[in-house]
Amino acid sequence: MYRSNSCGELRASHIGSEVILSGWVHKLRDKGFVAWVDLRDRYGITQLVFDEERTSKELLEQARELGRETVIQAKGQVIERASKNPNIPTGEIEVLVTELTILNTSLLPPFTIEDDTDGGEDIRMKYRYLDIRRNPVKNNLIFRHKVSMEVRKYLSDQGFIDVETPYLIKSTPEGARDFLVPSRMNEGQFYALPQSPQTFKQLLMVGGMDKYFQIVKCFRDEDLRADRQPEFTQIDCEMAFVEQEDILNTFEGLTKHLLKEIKGVDIQEFPRMTYDDAMRLYGNDKPDIRFGMQFGELNAVAQHKDFNVFNTAELVVGIAVPGASEYTRKEIDALIDWVKRPQVGAKGMVYVKCNEDGSYKSSVDKFYDEQDLAKWAEVTGAKPGDLIFVLSGDANVTRAQLSALRMELATRLGLRKPNEFAPLWVVDFPLLELDEETGTYHAMHHPFTSPKPGQLELLETNPGAVKANAYDLVLNGNEIGGGSIRIHDKETQATMFKHLGFTPEEAKAQFGFLMDAFQYGAPPHGGIAFGLDRLVSILGGQETIRDFIAFPKNNSGRDVMIDAPATIDKAQLDELSICLANNK
Amino acid sequence: MYRSNSCGELRASHIGSEVILSGWVHKLRDKGFVAWVDLRDRYGITQLVFDEERTSKELLEQARELGRETVIQAKGQVIERASKNPNIPTGEIEVLVTELTILNTSLLPPFTIEDDTDGGEDIRMKYRYLDIRRNPVKNNLIFRHKVSMEVRKYLSDQGFIDVETPYLIKSTPEGARDFLVPSRMNEGQFYALPQSPQTFKQLLMVGGMDKYFQIVKCFRDEDLRADRQPEFTQIDCEMAFVEQEDILNTFEGLTKHLLKEIKGVDIQEFPRMTYDDAMRLYGNDKPDIRFGMQFGELNAVAQHKDFNVFNTAELVVGIAVPGASEYTRKEIDALIDWVKRPQVGAKGMVYVKCNEDGSYKSSVDKFYDEQDLAKWAEVTGAKPGDLIFVLSGDANVTRAQLSALRMELATRLGLRKPNEFAPLWVVDFPLLELDEETGTYHAMHHPFTSPKPGQLELLETNPGAVKANAYDLVLNGNEIGGGSIRIHDKETQATMFKHLGFTPEEAKAQFGFLMDAFQYGAPPHGGIAFGLDRLVSILGGQETIRDFIAFPKNNSGRDVMIDAPATIDKAQLDELSICLANNK
Repeated sequence: MYRSNSCGELRASHIGSEVILSGWVHKLRDKGFVAWVDLRDRYGITQLVFDEERTSKELLEQARELGRETVIQAKGQVIERASKNPNIPTGEIEVLVTELTILNTSLLPPFTIEDDTDGGEDIRMKYRYLDIRRNPVKNNLIFRHKVSMEVRKYLSDQGFIDVETPYLIKSTPEGARDFLVPSRMNEGQFYALPQSPQTFKQLLMVGGMDKYFQIVKCFRDEDLRADRQPEFTQIDCEMAFVEQEDILNTFEGLTKHLLKEIKGVDIQEFPRMTYDDAMRLYGNDKPDIRFGMQFGELNAVAQHKDFNVFNTAELVVGIAVPGASEYTRKEIDALIDWVKRPQVGAKGMVYVKCNEDGSYKSSVDKFYDEQDLAKWAEVTGAKPGDLIFVLSGDANVTRAQLSALRMELATRLGLRKPNEFAPLWVVDFPLLELDEETGTYHAMHHPFTSPKPGQLELLETNPGAVKANAYDLVLNGNEIGGGSIRIHDKETQATMFKHLGFTPEEAKAQFGFLMDAFQYGAPPHGGIAFGLDRLVSILGGQETIRDFIAFPKNNSGRDVMIDAPATIDKAQLDELSICLANNK
Repeated sequence: MYRSNSCGELRASHIGSEVILSGWVHKLRDKGFVAWVDLRDRYGITQLVFDEERTSKELLEQARELGRETVIQAKGQVIERASKNPNIPTGEIEVLVTELTILNTSLLPPFTIEDDTDGGEDIRMKYRYLDIRRNPVKNNLIFRHKVSMEVRKYLSDQGFIDVETPYLIKSTPEGARDFLVPSRMNEGQFYALPQSPQTFKQLLMVGGMDKYFQIVKCFRDEDLRADRQPEFTQIDCEMAFVEQEDILNTFEGLTKHLLKEIKGVDIQEFPRMTYDDAMRLYGNDKPDIRFGMQFGELNAVAQHKDFNVFNTAELVVGIAVPGASEYTRKEIDALIDWVKRPQVGAKGMVYVKCNEDGSYKSSVDKFYDEQDLAKWAEVTGAKPGDLIFVLSGDANVTRAQLSALRMELATRLGLRKPNEFAPLWVVDFPLLELDEETGTYHAMHHPFTSPKPGQLELLETNPGAVKANAYDLVLNGNEIGGGSIRIHDKETQATMFKHLGFTPEEAKAQFGFLMDAFQYGAPPHGGIAFGLDRLVSILGGQETIRDFIAFPKNNSGRDVMIDAPATIDKAQLDELSICLANNK
């Protein structure tokens, strides 16, 4: 037996007990005649004490030689500490060691195993197994486990069945890029790893499974933007015989349960907002509503004066920054420079100071008088003491720019509080999205999403105007879930594929099995998928998903710890009947 | 709202209620003036009634046209049934329908949606979504969900943390064949899909996670034997600071919990048997101990007579078949033919009838007298009325043959009762296994398994004799779990790799990260992995894992429903910088 207790459980009530502990040498304090070792395991830290009077000189000498991260087993008696440490649960006791066994030695770790480590991202990733010993990473992984367990418990209690769907499936070039897996037994053929279990969960609904969920790895071979992973985890759900309202209620229930159980936060009803309103009021389909600064559209009150920049703009739109009227010229110029950076791309920015005395001072005083500016304040909701920023230009572009500014200002003003939670349903998404480059439409959600009742005909005349039975759950400005009511009849699905540019042959080759299935009594159905990595990081009050993944990949898709991907033997290629193109 | 109730919940207490049900038309009985529809969903069947007197003629006509598997919504009133059906929970009531909506039509299914379907395996796999509507398949999937949930609950309550390990890892050609995934971003390099998360779970132990579990898909690109799948699910577990005893106790606890919660079966302590004893007594490292028929080794009592077949054999071994002394000559000959089939491969078989009167009659009476045969009966435990079968030859081969016969006889005698559960720990496995073809040793469990204390030196002199800290959990003659205490120091691991034929360079290239990790304070650790597919099928009283997998693959690794694997576009190959070898 390696231990009688963990390093996190001994208390004053254990004083006098003989115990055995095992763990890592976290710290050694050596006073010559006495030495203390902080012994660490997953559960906590217990102080071991060695001194030449109460134990033996040999044992003390042995302890004084212990290097950091050495793995030891210590037997001894729990005693009361002379100087107690009220900051840790085991701070009232220490263990007077009578027997010490070294279970394994350790080289000096390449970074300190402390909450605030001296190790940079790269070295911590290479030695991720040491990084995981640090509390912040370890606690994130334990937190993730708790969230997963609560999700499963809640959904299972609601009658959802966890069904495992296959990982070796078929490539569907539409959408993101697939990871492919050559088949050895079927020469020249390939499996694909699933981007999501979408078609399988729909087939489970056709199969009468009624309520399905799965916490499942999904794969997308995309060029990695910051904080994207080629493999990611989804809470994937589907229900039969439901309308949008049923789905929203069910998964609002799940999210409330998580907020309550995990964070102790009670939220009554989640607000809902249409996609159009979200774009109009926040310039963004996933608005952070923990704070205000809603957009005010100023075309009516700012155009047709002599300011040509506004007169020629499709949209003139502003936000009121609370309490910012005292910003110096320098601070304002810095913000103007910020929106002019290529990442945001504004050409310039107009501002209006709403002074405490009710007067206004703007960068466009030449064109607008106090009465004009008072109207701007009204539209943007600015109060005395606020500062209004105004952008103008193409509607979509300007909204995106002002949204970026709004988020940046909120961050600077400390309005994005990590332990405040503001969920929001965004509904009535467009069915299709115009690809500006190619001029073709593609599915905003995916090709299985149903249009709103009665809008199918619009597909012929005005595809961009068709709304979908699609919804996103937004939490603190992040999309944590998204879903839709699906198409469940073959004809509508065929129409959708046609509008997405599939020939009937292509549709049949890729999704024939699904359209066949729809002919055998497919029930109305819909679902949702949550990004678990993102959900966990936001619930954890952080925004970097990598910190909540045990063994993440870097931006080149590499696991730098195991050094994957890697070259392989020619024999393996031969067995798979493939070759490397550059060796042709 | 599609439904107020499911098709499985209405009882006599609901009589008088107005309800809305949705589901599939399971059966229509049409008497002309009245028609009954059995409406089915996941939860059960409710009888709908239509008649021209109580509702409307139009409605009745509509109902009479309903084809099987049509999806309908029915509104109506719960009424008492005239002729009750005590065999189903909803048998006391029916719903008098006042409104009928067809939600989706159905073509005639290619097989009947009944417990005993007329569909063969192939057609059911192609239309798996229809197969899942059938109770046996649907209930198996729900059963699997229950088992998974109980596993998670138990392990989580025991302090295990569910940590997700990566699916895109590195190929390790040792062992079974990997599925490979070409990396687009790292040209000429490949990921591999994990055969198990073995190294990652060990790294989690190095990382101090202490107790880990995961229910995880694993992948092996092997030629598929019956009832093997290229992707399969493992309950993967690892613990730090443990000895073999700790692991056995922990997972005996899990298995007892499952047997109790899922099957209502209380089992006290699981018996343990060494690998050597299992081979000696059952000819098999996963003996089914629901029944007896232990092997009796007869060399001492059967050799050195005039029967040369036995005299020249390495092993003479028999089993007593209970109550089989009355088998006819024809029955016995059929069994002799059975063991001579190429799948078993015996050259012949000797039998001894132990008559009720205490006399013996054998096929080798020429060589052995009653006294000799009485000794055989003693050694094999045969009683009057039993029949002894004896095989001889090379020890390993003969044991395997007799084991096959033992299982076949038990099946024929009805001794393999699906609802009786006999777990068994098999311990002290050999560390290495001799590959008869190549004459080299390979790891019996895997290269990370530790030898028994003090046996490391034996590796040099007698590698086949080294025992490992390895154990299997056997249930009803199936290995449901296996694991080991791992090596946790770099030197021992290097020694193991050397004996497995790795050069130091190969070991470093493939497992350098693990050996590096062992240098930074790796704790003693060990674990186990259960095959979930197998575990669930045995708990479910069946032996075919395919029946417990939603979308299984066939013996060529194909998903015949979605038709995967499939050929892909050249453009996709080009992006991955690979080509097909036969197009070179």
